[in-house]
Amino acid sequence: MALAVVDINCDMGEGFGCWHLGGADDAELMTFISSANIATGFHAGDPNLMDATVRAAVQRGISIGAHPGYRDLQGFGRRRIHGSADEIVNDILYQVGALREFCRRHGANLRHVKPHGALYMELARNEAMSRSFVEAMRVTSPGTSIFCMGVSTTYRAAIAAGQPTVREFYADRDYDDTGSIVFTRHSGRLDPQAVADKVVRACVDGRVRTVDGSDIDIEFESICFHSDTPGCLEIASAMHAALIAHGIRIEPVTNI
Amino acid sequence: MALAVVDINCDMGEGFGCWHLGGADDAELMTFISSANIATGFHAGDPNLMDATVRAAVQRGISIGAHPGYRDLQGFGRRRIHGSADEIVNDILYQVGALREFCRRHGANLRHVKPHGALYMELARNEAMSRSFVEAMRVTSPGTSIFCMGVSTTYRAAIAAGQPTVREFYADRDYDDTGSIVFTRHSGRLDPQAVADKVVRACVDGRVRTVDGSDIDIEFESICFHSDTPGCLEIASAMHAALIAHGIRIEPVTNI
Amino acid sequence: MALAVVDINCDMGEGFGCWHLGGADDAELMTFISSANIATGFHAGDPNLMDATVRAAVQRGISIGAHPGYRDLQGFGRRRIHGSADEIVNDILYQVGALREFCRRHGANLRHVKPHGALYMELARNEAMSRSFVEAMRVTSPGTSIFCMGVSTTYRAAIAAGQPTVREFYADRDYDDTGSIVFTRHSGRLDPQAVADKVVRACVDGRVRTVDGSDIDIEFESICFHSDTPGCLEIASAMHAALIAHGIRIEPVTNI
Amino acid sequence: MALAVVDINCDMGEGFGCWHLGGADDAELMTFISSANIATGFHAGDPNLMDATVRAAVQRGISIGAHPGYRDLQGFGRRRIHGSADEIVNDILYQVGALREFCRRHGANLRHVKPHGALYMELARNEAMSRSFVEAMRVTSPGTSIFCMGVSTTYRAAIAAGQPTVREFYADRDYDDTGSIVFTRHSGRLDPQAVADKVVRACVDGRVRTVDGSDIDIEFESICFHSDTPGCLEIASAMHAALIAHGIRIEPVTNI
Repeated sequence: MALAVVDINCDMGEGFGCWHLGGADDAELMTFISSANIATGFHAGDPNLMDATVRAAVQRGISIGAHPGYRDLQGFGRRRIHGSADEIVNDILYQVGALREFCRRHGANLRHVKPHGALYMELARNEAMSRSFVEAMRVTSPGTSIFCMGVSTTYRAAIAAGQPTVREFYADRDYDDTGSIVFTRHSGRLDPQAVADKVVRACVDGRVRTVDGSDIDIEFESICFHSDTPGCLEIASAMHAALIAHGIRIEPVTNI
Repeated sequence: MALAVVDINCDMGEGFGCWHLGGADDAELMTFISSANIATGFHAGDPNLMDATVRAAVQRGISIGAHPGYRDLQGFGRRRIHGSADEIVNDILYQVGALREFCRRHGANLRHVKPHGALYMELARNEAMSRSFVEAMRVTSPGTSIFCMGVSTTYRAAIAAGQPTVREFYADRDYDDTGSIVFTRHSGRLDPQAVADKVVRACVDGRVRTVDGSDIDIEFESICFHSDTPGCLEIASAMHAALIAHGIRIEPVTNI
Repeated sequence: MALAVVDINCDMGEGFGCWHLGGADDAELMTFISSANIATGFHAGDPNLMDATVRAAVQRGISIGAHPGYRDLQGFGRRRIHGSADEIVNDILYQVGALREFCRRHGANLRHVKPHGALYMELARNEAMSRSFVEAMRVTSPGTSIFCMGVSTTYRAAIAAGQPTVREFYADRDYDDTGSIVFTRHSGRLDPQAVADKVVRACVDGRVRTVDGSDIDIEFESICFHSDTPGCLEIASAMHAALIAHGIRIEPVTNI
Repeated sequence: MALAVVDINCDMGEGFGCWHLGGADDAELMTFISSANIATGFHAGDPNLMDATVRAAVQRGISIGAHPGYRDLQGFGRRRIHGSADEIVNDILYQVGALREFCRRHGANLRHVKPHGALYMELARNEAMSRSFVEAMRVTSPGTSIFCMGVSTTYRAAIAAGQPTVREFYADRDYDDTGSIVFTRHSGRLDPQAVADKVVRACVDGRVRTVDGSDIDIEFESICFHSDTPGCLEIASAMHAALIAHGIRIEPVTNI
């Protein structure tokens, strides 16, 4: 499945008020990505930051997506909250609409929605919630892509409903044999070149080495990395250069 | 300026989570209004309530507006927060977009924006903030009406910029000689018939008696009353009946 | 185990800002209780309401406890949030301290802590979290009672550590054969006299009928009912009268 | 008024969840201070951070104070909120109590209260609010010092009521001829040595040069600097060394 074109996405605008995430500046990272997942206020992101991040993405021609999370500023949306499918979907719509308004202000279209953190993982395994989410998207945003893992109920629900999807490959996460990402603790920084090699191999051969030591097939349209991964700027730069060197174009999926 | 048609607007969805405002149910009040200002989450309103309120308004053919406020759930948006024009406008856009998404879900258009409480009053007197607000609306929502007082910098800024406006007459508030509403403490409930008479007179003669004892001219396209005014259901009912009896149609301004 | 004395506790101050819970007024309910669990700001309760509720409890000689919940205003603390034991205990300490300050202002002692809603249930079954909670209480409040179910890890952890406990009997909830409360949906209001009879039987015979149709032993020092149970005022009144009629005194446990 | 002993205070724990303030680490700054004003959750600070910061201060023998602010996480408490004296004082008590609980856990006493940002400035000029604040402190914390400017209604209200006070000298702010601090924009970093000289002169001669070019008398017991002032670590270090070199001991005021 050697890819001729791939998207690179990264979470952006994940500060709040006077606070910013450590790691690289969004502005620097924008050099290396084609899609931005912009935080929408519940786990991170405030209206000023959303406005500024949308503006910056538009200036750089980066495709814009909403990055809604659980209403949990203290936990950065990384803690699961046991809400009903209906209320979680309402939370998502609220946040998507808020970001869409800033897109409207800056003359951009909202191209994708990627749930954040614990919400992303919950949707990946909760079939009823995924169906409610996709159903709401069908009504409000039939042309908007849902970013998700290939192995997830989110993906299956979107495909079943005819909603566009973008499957992700996680550059800075490990995989298990099922094709799911696992949260292993690294003893130090990732090696940028090793990440770049892994990404290129995934694009060219459609294969990735798992934490269990085997190789599995992987299909995706977008590469994800995180702005709070230590050394993410070097990783992004190495990955970007390696893809170019292998003749793979980096473009928003919606252009593909 | 005898009005043949007038709009009646009321704030709706001003609960949060398990809490609802005392006074009348929104569903009952919707019988008597043509425009709903729906709370958008900062001073009141949560995504579930916004969704339900938009749905109910659509079912009854009521025109929908966003009712953004200061980020102050504890103070119900009645306390002024000293923010810059830019940050307050971003707060407004965020909330407007959130509500617009629920309109999108339920097949409705967002017809107006009416700032809430202390934000409404601040905009009424803050020229720079009004201009920033109107400028943002010009870009994101050129056809959407701004609800405001006739004597306000909001009104003047909107007129100057060509943004549609709807001026309000406050049925359950008192006026001073400048045409501004004043916050007088009433020693008990308002008399529904007296309110109805005041409203009819304002519609037919364009005149209102002030707290200073004089009569002033008043121009408006919409009548506002509040769902937390004691006895508001009786007031709404009496007002509605009196207008009909005087041959004045009650319709959303955007239909006029 | 016929009880000569029993405590009656109820959650109080569960509004926020301009909002109050439906059902009975706290002031009326205070006539019938000996211990108040006062909401501490995360799931409900704001500083003004906490101050007013502590003052009212002090005036009536009611024993005061803190009623901390998950940080979830929208969900009223009824949704589990997957936090670590350490962070949940810090959330509890924060809230307990806040309430204790108002006790200090009004010359009262904080007598007990009763976690709210989903947090109460999580502690009941999460041994590690219960131990962390009890350990923190040992340090900050060795004389303060923890309100809990007799069948709960909270109870066992407190007993093991020597922290005082008060076991509860839920007047307006059903029990299963394990002695746990179950959330059954009632088709209408509870009958106040039936509740009163159930409570008296539990006090006199130490027995309660379960949803499975059998009778089980039940031990407790305090009777709990909820201010948002429909008809709670009638229930509280009937229960209070029935206990008195059976010669059972109603007093804070810490007096017993 | 050459001082033999002076206190140095700094705001600490002003992050939230995953976010930290830029500038120096609290742990490094603690080397140079004798009093920590710990953020209490409304403008910054969460229960985990409060717990960790209190623990770190206790380990270093640093005196602990509560640093309550307006309920404005997005604005970092730098935006004035028009609340009544009663409600603002309740907000303060809530926050003070929360921090006191962590002191209780770590075996420390709460030694002072210093309001934050816009709340500090509001209290400095709002006599009614200052009196309410001091009155509440008289009841809850008669031995706890209020940190304030010498020229402030807070200071006068505390003195009048017999509440202990600590007047501050702002190392990294400018003064005007009235003795008030002014918010001038500096074109670059402050020179650490210049700040150290200014501080020593204030301690030894009781004089400070104002932005108007004159010299005024200044009285204080504590020196304040801010952890978000660029280069604050160098400033703290230079200031600390200069004071020692001039034979001035650095100790918590409550020890003096």
